[in-house]
Amino acid sequence: MDILLTNDDGIHAEGLWAMERVLSGRHNVYVVAPDKERSAIGHSITLAHPLRVNRIKTNGGWGYAVTGTPADCVKLAIREILERIPDIVVSGINPGANVGINLNYSGTVSAAKEAALMGVPAIAVSKDLSLNDNYSLVTAFVSDLIAKVVKNGLPRATFLNVNIPDCSPEHIQGVRITRQGTAPLISIKSGFHRRVDPRNEVYYWQGVERQAFEEEVESDGAALCANCISVTPVQCDMTDYESIETLKTWDFGLA
Amino acid sequence: MDILLTNDDGIHAEGLWAMERVLSGRHNVYVVAPDKERSAIGHSITLAHPLRVNRIKTNGGWGYAVTGTPADCVKLAIREILERIPDIVVSGINPGANVGINLNYSGTVSAAKEAALMGVPAIAVSKDLSLNDNYSLVTAFVSDLIAKVVKNGLPRATFLNVNIPDCSPEHIQGVRITRQGTAPLISIKSGFHRRVDPRNEVYYWQGVERQAFEEEVESDGAALCANCISVTPVQCDMTDYESIETLKTWDFGLA
Repeated sequence: MDILLTNDDGIHAEGLWAMERVLSGRHNVYVVAPDKERSAIGHSITLAHPLRVNRIKTNGGWGYAVTGTPADCVKLAIREILERIPDIVVSGINPGANVGINLNYSGTVSAAKEAALMGVPAIAVSKDLSLNDNYSLVTAFVSDLIAKVVKNGLPRATFLNVNIPDCSPEHIQGVRITRQGTAPLISIKSGFHRRVDPRNEVYYWQGVERQAFEEEVESDGAALCANCISVTPVQCDMTDYESIETLKTWDFGLA
Repeated sequence: MDILLTNDDGIHAEGLWAMERVLSGRHNVYVVAPDKERSAIGHSITLAHPLRVNRIKTNGGWGYAVTGTPADCVKLAIREILERIPDIVVSGINPGANVGINLNYSGTVSAAKEAALMGVPAIAVSKDLSLNDNYSLVTAFVSDLIAKVVKNGLPRATFLNVNIPDCSPEHIQGVRITRQGTAPLISIKSGFHRRVDPRNEVYYWQGVERQAFEEEVESDGAALCANCISVTPVQCDMTDYESIETLKTWDFGLA
């Protein structure tokens, strides 16, 4: 199988190569990743600057370092770098969960979304809090999931967002098929740290935000809290179909 | 009414101030926009660098220029700059349509999405191809739509994506409530321009992409082709609910 591996932490990231080591034993694995960390870059693509691609040897192995975003990497890999369209794209392993509204900001998730938009099956993989334990459980689960996805297929423009809980392998309570959590931020009047620089100019750091506790057991965040692996099917179509009928009753004046 | 106005083309953009001129006659309008163009930035937010805010006088009027993305602008405006949470956020007017899969890349749309995630009603406004005619139709339509949205409300975490067709006001054929088009790109083996620089190094420009012609009359792109104004309700929840039951039948080994 041809597998394209990418991430948003950059080509030197530990989680990327942990995945590569396991998959390359049985598959043709192509690593095409940003040359530096691009966390919270969302589904950004690079239009105003050209992209450079360098084949480099990292601590983990050989890969293509791209001077762009995760979505750029997927586009460029599929269109220019790889000789064949890959059977699947895997993005990660990201250190830190990607659940709830954070899916909007995540470069890890957006790389998988870009693949899905291009018609290639894809999985985004994140590990809650950190990658402090060994990766054997994560990589074994993802290897197995790849086989299932390629065998069973996914609907067009749908990909899987996988999150692994922050516990040791023996404490994993199972797998939950979940929905993306929609709990809002706890307060919308906090979140920035206002500081003054040595030249007396104000600047702001974006703070660390927490979503409100997700009550609904079906959500991705709740699965992690219960030490379950969360698998969420994510679609690229963002239409709110339920609101279409309501909006049709609004009088727009124009016929 | 308190209205927050932003965009992804930067604080000096013509479309932003065309909207401001019309809205400021009847409302308190706060302009908080990126200090430079941030097209195709998606839902990126700035974590690795601090943000600066400068109140500046542009050719259009006074506004806050932020050294960040459209989503940063909305977060910072609501949490730090404005004294009250605005009644509505308007993003645009963007020169160029934002329909179909381009919603994923659009900074204009992501600004409205950020507002919706924060619980504030929002409208993204784009004009097909360019802003070459006068703005009277666009601004009149949006002024009217703002009143409707504030009166009727929108579901939590849903916003409106508005696109105005590329024709003169008298040729507008009406308003269509649409869904986001999902037509794929015509070819996934094209799209980058490979060039060689004067130092003999290869670089790539991301090409101009076209979606396949959207056959379904309910889509946003089809509305524009028919010279109709397109209004799409967009939701932040990306879960593919139909796939949840299918995935539950997959055997994951773990209970």
